[in-house]
Amino acid sequence: MWRRVCAALPSRRKLSSLGDGSPPGRRHATTGACLEYSENGDPEKVVARREVPVPAPRGDQVLMKMLAAPVNPADINTIQGTYAVQPPLPSIPGNEGVGEVVAVGDGYAGGLQPGDKVIPRVNALGTWRTHIIAPDTDLIKIPCDADLVTAATIAVNPGTAYRMLKDFVHVGFGDTVIQNGANSAVGQAVIQIAVAIGVNTINVVRNRPNIEELKDYLTTLGATVVVTEEELRKSEKVKALPPPRLALNCVSGRSGTDVLRQLAHGGVMVTYGGMSRQPVIGPVGSLIFHDITLRGFWMTRWNKQHFNDPQRQEMLDHLFQLAKSGKLKPPDHTLVPFSDYIVALRNAMPKQGMLGKKQILKFNNS
Amino acid sequence: MWRRVCAALPSRRKLSSLGDGSPPGRRHATTGACLEYSENGDPEKVVARREVPVPAPRGDQVLMKMLAAPVNPADINTIQGTYAVQPPLPSIPGNEGVGEVVAVGDGYAGGLQPGDKVIPRVNALGTWRTHIIAPDTDLIKIPCDADLVTAATIAVNPGTAYRMLKDFVHVGFGDTVIQNGANSAVGQAVIQIAVAIGVNTINVVRNRPNIEELKDYLTTLGATVVVTEEELRKSEKVKALPPPRLALNCVSGRSGTDVLRQLAHGGVMVTYGGMSRQPVIGPVGSLIFHDITLRGFWMTRWNKQHFNDPQRQEMLDHLFQLAKSGKLKPPDHTLVPFSDYIVALRNAMPKQGMLGKKQILKFNNS
Repeated sequence: MWRRVCAALPSRRKLSSLGDGSPPGRRHATTGACLEYSENGDPEKVVARREVPVPAPRGDQVLMKMLAAPVNPADINTIQGTYAVQPPLPSIPGNEGVGEVVAVGDGYAGGLQPGDKVIPRVNALGTWRTHIIAPDTDLIKIPCDADLVTAATIAVNPGTAYRMLKDFVHVGFGDTVIQNGANSAVGQAVIQIAVAIGVNTINVVRNRPNIEELKDYLTTLGATVVVTEEELRKSEKVKALPPPRLALNCVSGRSGTDVLRQLAHGGVMVTYGGMSRQPVIGPVGSLIFHDITLRGFWMTRWNKQHFNDPQRQEMLDHLFQLAKSGKLKPPDHTLVPFSDYIVALRNAMPKQGMLGKKQILKFNNS
Repeated sequence: MWRRVCAALPSRRKLSSLGDGSPPGRRHATTGACLEYSENGDPEKVVARREVPVPAPRGDQVLMKMLAAPVNPADINTIQGTYAVQPPLPSIPGNEGVGEVVAVGDGYAGGLQPGDKVIPRVNALGTWRTHIIAPDTDLIKIPCDADLVTAATIAVNPGTAYRMLKDFVHVGFGDTVIQNGANSAVGQAVIQIAVAIGVNTINVVRNRPNIEELKDYLTTLGATVVVTEEELRKSEKVKALPPPRLALNCVSGRSGTDVLRQLAHGGVMVTYGGMSRQPVIGPVGSLIFHDITLRGFWMTRWNKQHFNDPQRQEMLDHLFQLAKSGKLKPPDHTLVPFSDYIVALRNAMPKQGMLGKKQILKFNNS
């Protein structure tokens, strides 16, 4: 990984020394840059950009140039030091993104070729940098014609939506799923995947000045019903749908409880976030008498547990297919030049507990 | 059911009219009594005793005399009107107990005989009465030599303990289970069943004046560790055990969260009560990053779903076997003559949120 390369490269090693006799097309020598932080804190303050040499790949290594990488909430929390998993410092942030293979090492015998598009197979690859050197076991090849933003953002959020719809309760044609934070990147993916499999969605969002605009947007994506937290209990449209057996919760606190109360007997609420900074509150009666189950989902764990599992490739194939056919749009986003990373970090911070557009770092490479 | 018989019996029908030509031994005519309430409220105030005629069983009916019936928390809450399920009023309380068959109807072709001991198969049979007429499908025959108190109390509390240890996480020899409210009737059964299958128990109880006495009592039952809520976090004895994958929670609120935090990655907390009158509070991180699952258990639902399932008989056989071999003692209890039911109701109410000894109504019949 680049992080290791950065740390391990003795400063005396000049790029000019990289002419190592590799056959043409397998060499690469240039200058790149990475973002890095050495202490936890406010991302705008602790993250710095650093010029770094880009060595040629050796042995079975693959050199990729990054094309685009999102700023996800988990990246922000990792930098702040509040995330569940903390890398050793200094660290290059970035858990997701899409790159293009530019060269492979002399001893490389794998299936990747320059020009191939790849996304990380491993967690915490450190995607906020222009170039990455990695073994190809760390990477997953994706369709060459994949849209840039889709490719950069498909694994984490749509992956989370896909698994939550698939792994907890069997939901099929005509069933209903309820979710809060429905305008989150995961929420938008949930709506679209649900449409593709014929599942109704009850989408709960917080009230806000432009609420009608947001409702229209989610409805355009395919939301069956969009309600504010206040409207949820009394909504006739909600009552008219089959009671949901699956609830997806990224807010927790009172909103989580309200959503949980809509579940049919024996339903499951899957928590994947805590935007309210409150715990999940489960009424005793819901658990005992209505047989409600409360679970959690973490894409990172799922990926680790299914590192090379065919289910993972199957999921990505399915998601890219949906995206290609126009059924899964990338989240509402802003492409930010890598050099303006500070702007991306600033805009990625929640404002009054709400997240704005997904910030995506775009590299000059792309 | 007696309730129906009570209600349906025209007052003009005299006991003297019950000489219906049944062969000797199939007749029965006497006077009995039932407890009854016509409105929800304080059990001591709303429950009244009523003399009732005891008709002879007709057709395929079975007449049993009650021997003993406990006052369970669910009975109290049902009378108060705070329980999840409410019977139509007026109603005869009592969900559990043991009776003895005294006569069967003319057309009876089942396997029960006078002298057989039986417990309810159905929920809400209304056991707080001297006699019950029911079809034998409402009853389960139990071993004739079963101890009176064991028979009267085995189905609900030890049944709950048994199922929670069996149906959520596989716990076997050397594993650990943690529970709060460990001195409850269910808790005491958990400790003893766990001992019988080689499972360690971490038992959390609230601090109280006679705490050492309580610790000694639970230790005598086989508890591996007994700690107060305050001692739980820092207990070296707790840390020395394999982390529990199963937690049993009848308190909820903060106590539930404290117990949940002790669970190993991927563990399950099963809630079967809310003594604190607080909801179950699940930290978001526990759900997402530690993959903790929160479930609920309700014996009534299990029994309904397994009404005639062999698993039910298997469970009762196992529990009676444990009891017979001295490995499962009945809960700490007081036998109260049926005529003193008011005393039993009073003593069954929680004092400062704590339950005292199990109150068991004992009928003159026994």
